[in-house]
Amino acid sequence: MQVLKAVITAAAPNQNRLPLQQLVDAHGEEKTALQLIIEETVAAGVEEICLVIKPGDHAAYQSAAGSHLGSVKFVEQPEPLGYADAILRAKDFVGDEPFLHLVGDHLYVSGNLTPCAKQLVEIAGEFDCSVSAVQSTRENNLPYFGIVSGPNVPRRERLYEIERVVEKPTPTFAEQELVTPGLRVGHYLGFFGMHVLTSEVMPLIDRLIADFKQSGSFDKKPTLSDAADLLPSRGRYLAYEIHGSRYNLGIKYGLLKAQLAIGLSGIDKEQILAEMVDLLSHRLEAQSAS
Amino acid sequence: MQVLKAVITAAAPNQNRLPLQQLVDAHGEEKTALQLIIEETVAAGVEEICLVIKPGDHAAYQSAAGSHLGSVKFVEQPEPLGYADAILRAKDFVGDEPFLHLVGDHLYVSGNLTPCAKQLVEIAGEFDCSVSAVQSTRENNLPYFGIVSGPNVPRRERLYEIERVVEKPTPTFAEQELVTPGLRVGHYLGFFGMHVLTSEVMPLIDRLIADFKQSGSFDKKPTLSDAADLLPSRGRYLAYEIHGSRYNLGIKYGLLKAQLAIGLSGIDKEQILAEMVDLLSHRLEAQSAS
Repeated sequence: MQVLKAVITAAAPNQNRLPLQQLVDAHGEEKTALQLIIEETVAAGVEEICLVIKPGDHAAYQSAAGSHLGSVKFVEQPEPLGYADAILRAKDFVGDEPFLHLVGDHLYVSGNLTPCAKQLVEIAGEFDCSVSAVQSTRENNLPYFGIVSGPNVPRRERLYEIERVVEKPTPTFAEQELVTPGLRVGHYLGFFGMHVLTSEVMPLIDRLIADFKQSGSFDKKPTLSDAADLLPSRGRYLAYEIHGSRYNLGIKYGLLKAQLAIGLSGIDKEQILAEMVDLLSHRLEAQSAS
Repeated sequence: MQVLKAVITAAAPNQNRLPLQQLVDAHGEEKTALQLIIEETVAAGVEEICLVIKPGDHAAYQSAAGSHLGSVKFVEQPEPLGYADAILRAKDFVGDEPFLHLVGDHLYVSGNLTPCAKQLVEIAGEFDCSVSAVQSTRENNLPYFGIVSGPNVPRRERLYEIERVVEKPTPTFAEQELVTPGLRVGHYLGFFGMHVLTSEVMPLIDRLIADFKQSGSFDKKPTLSDAADLLPSRGRYLAYEIHGSRYNLGIKYGLLKAQLAIGLSGIDKEQILAEMVDLLSHRLEAQSAS
């Protein structure tokens, strides 16, 4: 399986400014978060990108896409029907090809020389099926993630056969239903915000959205986890524990942490360390003076 | 003199996205840089704010102004005629009243319990004249600032009678013409990006802009320094060395430094320190593993 397309979702009403934030990348170049996310997909071999945005955000995203604008197709999510619906907006773009999916409010720092998305695309290529990136996630972080469970793939480190996917489970439910053997006690496999999906996922989302609209309920908009939970019944679906870290820009100090992590992993790490020490010493000076 | 109006300039073509960046303030609340700048003026007693923006930026700035939107009047700078012209766009707003002027791409952390802009407004109130905030600036930073010189006000620490203002002087010129007695060797008084100006400055700028347009040259757009250099001939004009630090968001890692400085000065300082240590240890771990 070759992955040449990517879908980036950035239409959530409270998160839509995050991809527009300014950062400095590992090479010391000033870029928007959106540029960094696009470059993560390009480094994985992607040639065409579909960006799902909120109506009205077109101009801001266009200028934030920088030099990659030529490879980007914009699609609007007309109604805020949630995460799964945002992915479904890329149905025509995807056609019958597999695609890399990234969320617009996370940044990644690889733990080895291969960028995170490339690690994932390589696994998908090798096993020819959908693969979700995961990381070992402590019980106290269950409220923030989709959680998967299933047995280790024999003789393969970091690779799991997904049997179940549950969005933001309670600790009790997770302990009873979602324990993955081999992880530390109280740890689960949580979504990393990065997936390679086959086009099979689109009709599954389509049905979930249709059911949701028919239900008349406005509480539980379908998430990607709801659709992903249906994937194992259709064929092999893997989880891969990425070598790397993800930084959620949407949490408090998320941008600060992402910038520090990127800075400390890149060519400016000496400068970043010096600035940190300088600020700390200034701060201590100011405190002892007051 | 009571200062009830503020003019914030944010129309420079390359800097206009900076006020829209997301930060966390010293109280741990998520805000845009623009909100922090507006709050600096409000904490100094300002009641009405004029924001000078680039055409087309209205919607983005409106949403970035947050809860202060009701106190903000937007004025566009129709042509990119530079910094002094941007201030002149607020002529009608200012009328014949004094005003606090802040630039849209700097953030401030006070070195004592009084916010930086309030320190400045208090001096202007006491001496009833224009006052520019300055800080002791090393020779190697001359290319970035307007530099002032003049004698210390007798029996007052940190206060100077401005005699000259020169925008970005060369080291040789500064050494010959702009030495202020009492500063460390090789140090000058550099603008801090914060001024209280009387409405007298407006006709001075008006004339500079008219001369500039007539000259037909497009090199040297008038700066605030050019207008400020004419102020001492009209009456008293002071410089005050603020207790505090300024963070220029427009330089590389400027946002990172500003966020770290604000974080380390606020209620979340323990958390910021913990995150810094955590990231450093992760980084060291990753380096020793690779």
